[in-house]
Amino acid sequence: MIGRLNHVAIAVKDIAAASALYRDTMGADVSEAVPQTEHGVTTVFIHLPNTKIELLEPLGADSPIAKFLERNPDGGIHHICYEVDDILAARDRLKATGARVLGTGEPKIGAHGKPVLFLHPKDFNGTLVELEQA
Amino acid sequence: MIGRLNHVAIAVKDIAAASALYRDTMGADVSEAVPQTEHGVTTVFIHLPNTKIELLEPLGADSPIAKFLERNPDGGIHHICYEVDDILAARDRLKATGARVLGTGEPKIGAHGKPVLFLHPKDFNGTLVELEQA
Repeated sequence: MIGRLNHVAIAVKDIAAASALYRDTMGADVSEAVPQTEHGVTTVFIHLPNTKIELLEPLGADSPIAKFLERNPDGGIHHICYEVDDILAARDRLKATGARVLGTGEPKIGAHGKPVLFLHPKDFNGTLVELEQA
Repeated sequence: MIGRLNHVAIAVKDIAAASALYRDTMGADVSEAVPQTEHGVTTVFIHLPNTKIELLEPLGADSPIAKFLERNPDGGIHHICYEVDDILAARDRLKATGARVLGTGEPKIGAHGKPVLFLHPKDFNGTLVELEQA
């Protein structure tokens, strides 16, 4: 069911500093920062040869990553995203096993413009898992 | 400098249950569990089309992931591993910027039989980073 690892998301307090670290010190291909008001984050993508790292900085008062950064003041890995061919089929298969889908359970359009769902970390080894329709 | 994302490592308490979750519920290609006595972990690899997830279960009394699981009893993402062409050149470049290399600072042979180093999470956005010579 799951396909490619679409990205690993790292929450950071200072996306300019984190971008500079990956661009200058790590020598990676780093995108410009893009404010995504509707998602409450500013994003930067680090393009590796086989996948992406997504840097996330809180944007606005209700950012979904604000609490994570309170608990993890240095930043940290926030979630991993797997691609699926059919997000509704994937959701229904997971729900049938008792796994919990966060929010309403209906896919939303994510930061890449594609349908996404998030799965409960307690059902996935303490890991917040995003599914994105490829 | 950094190349492919070699793997994302997830620490788990019960590798048999985590393997079954990824194999049966997530429909992924999951390897057998391999005890790695010299590394203090049992490993399972989940082969995705573009990279790997490495499941880690503590093995023995001095497992390097035992404390992580005490702090994260559900499990969680333990580290990410980037490939580099020349691990000594990468280390020296990072050290010149003030980044801290864990342990002796000399590469060890990792769970894949290749030279590896770990970098201090405080210098990398709260993320434990492994470098592996590709």
